[in-house]
Amino acid sequence: MSTAWVTLATNDGYALGALVLAHSLRRAKTRHHLHILYTDGVTAQMRSRLLAVFHNSTRVDVLDSNDTENLALIGRPDLGVTFTKLHCWRLTQYEKCVFLDADTLIIQNCDELFERPEFAAAPDIGWPDLFNSGVFVFVPSNDAYQKLVEFGTQHGTFDGGDQGLLNLYFSNWREMDASHRLPFIYNVTSGSIYSYKAAYQLFGGNVKIVRFLGTVKPWHRDTSKHGHQNDHWGYWQQIFREDVSQNLPNGLVRYTPPKSPS
Amino acid sequence: MSTAWVTLATNDGYALGALVLAHSLRRAKTRHHLHILYTDGVTAQMRSRLLAVFHNSTRVDVLDSNDTENLALIGRPDLGVTFTKLHCWRLTQYEKCVFLDADTLIIQNCDELFERPEFAAAPDIGWPDLFNSGVFVFVPSNDAYQKLVEFGTQHGTFDGGDQGLLNLYFSNWREMDASHRLPFIYNVTSGSIYSYKAAYQLFGGNVKIVRFLGTVKPWHRDTSKHGHQNDHWGYWQQIFREDVSQNLPNGLVRYTPPKSPS
Ligand SMILES: O=c1ccn([C@@H]2O[C@H](COP(=O)(O)OP(=O)(O)O)[C@@H](O)[C@H]2O)c(=O)[nH]1
Ligand SMILES: O=c1ccn([C@@H]2O[C@H](COP(=O)(O)OP(=O)(O)O)[C@@H](O)[C@H]2O)c(=O)[nH]1
Ligand SMILES: [Mn+2]
Ligand SMILES: [Mn+2]
Repeated sequence: MSTAWVTLATNDGYALGALVLAHSLRRAKTRHHLHILYTDGVTAQMRSRLLAVFHNSTRVDVLDSNDTENLALIGRPDLGVTFTKLHCWRLTQYEKCVFLDADTLIIQNCDELFERPEFAAAPDIGWPDLFNSGVFVFVPSNDAYQKLVEFGTQHGTFDGGDQGLLNLYFSNWREMDASHRLPFIYNVTSGSIYSYKAAYQLFGGNVKIVRFLGTVKPWHRDTSKHGHQNDHWGYWQQIFREDVSQNLPNGLVRYTPPKSPS
Repeated sequence: MSTAWVTLATNDGYALGALVLAHSLRRAKTRHHLHILYTDGVTAQMRSRLLAVFHNSTRVDVLDSNDTENLALIGRPDLGVTFTKLHCWRLTQYEKCVFLDADTLIIQNCDELFERPEFAAAPDIGWPDLFNSGVFVFVPSNDAYQKLVEFGTQHGTFDGGDQGLLNLYFSNWREMDASHRLPFIYNVTSGSIYSYKAAYQLFGGNVKIVRFLGTVKPWHRDTSKHGHQNDHWGYWQQIFREDVSQNLPNGLVRYTPPKSPS
């Protein structure tokens, strides 16, 4: 079976995330290919770094929800561009894929995700009847891509980003059988937002994928005031130091994000 | 079918919560009975107020997990006593019940919960593969009660409270079919902890039961710094003013909680 992990970067910051993610997949000895979608916002220098660790890449056009009103609701004016994620359905050279946000990190091998059916995702902690779109199993199909884009054009997205659109499209996810609901260990929010410490102590050793939710991403700077789990944050920084930073052109060693257009 | 909503109070503070909860059930015109479990920690004055609004009551002994270590983990030394909740399985005069924490509030009629099978509960936002034990559908049975108490004695609880025990006991909840997984609208955390505002805007009108998670409960004092949704907090205070406070002996009009044994 031809399979791949797929991620997306529309600028050099998220590309740094993608580099660390790819190395975390390699450290976990995945058997599946690594594929990156990128837009023209990623510099040529960074693209060559991406190609050194991903097996394959695809240049895609930016798709934007242009939904400033709903994006304001979730406090993230920058997330309209996450519609670009939909391009992943066009990777029909693969029979099955798992999409990973560029701000996720693999803690343990989880190749078994490819045994799941489309569509599979884990609950979102903010409203657990919805799934989080940072990690999902899908089957590429040009037809599905067309339908998703048409659906997005007609219905929009209730949160301005891809997560709102995908939840409207796969609106029966909650009722699907358990194979479609990924266990939370495949998409744990590494954050202090609300953490059920006792559950974390019990299940923390099983965590396979974490996600650095929110505006403070690990590539912004290595600060102790990050609000994420220290061990996850530390592992990201370790991979960055050991596998990524020495191969970066000087200007990219520590990325400082441009001011948001507020 | 003989059915009841069941709640629990071990002191006058939670009893105030139970009074408002009972009035919220009556305002929502429930067809089911209201039953309260109370311990000797509830004063005689308060017991007579409870009996004016609940159809039935049962005095129960305190069951305590005595698990200070795990309770420290969740920052709530007071929750060992929630093991007392297990007594609800002994209410075999009913064929089916729905347990509600005393800090929940009914926003809309939700009598349809009684059509659900045992065991049914909604996901916990802290670790959504676990259920929250603030709202659950169960079938009273002395046999089940015995098994639960034995199980608790043997395995304890990973969080020190009833939620940890019940999740260990009904450990296959995540894999059960959708009828056992209550939609989130039946147990929404009314908190600013992490709120997915866009989802709230979309589904907020459907919310049927809310829960005042955490240490600041609406009976402590009416403050604007409560950290809960204003509309839910306000509705609790309105019921308290209109249906509860005028019938309370003076000393109980606004309950000030005893200092916690820190
Ligand atoms: O400006 C952006 C914003 C997002 N993304 C991609 O879209 C995903 C989702 O956005 P983000 O992770 O920032 O959302 P959050 O997890 O914070 O809700 C990212 O991980 C990236 O893969 C991107 O490439 N450029
Ligand atoms: O000292 C206590 C603590 C808890 N409870 C009961 O146990 C439930 C669960 O505790 P709580 O709601 O405080 O837990 P939280 O929802 O904050 O986790 C309460 O709603 C009450 O019904 C009680 O009667 N006395
Ligand atoms: Mn993300
Ligand atoms: Mn509660």
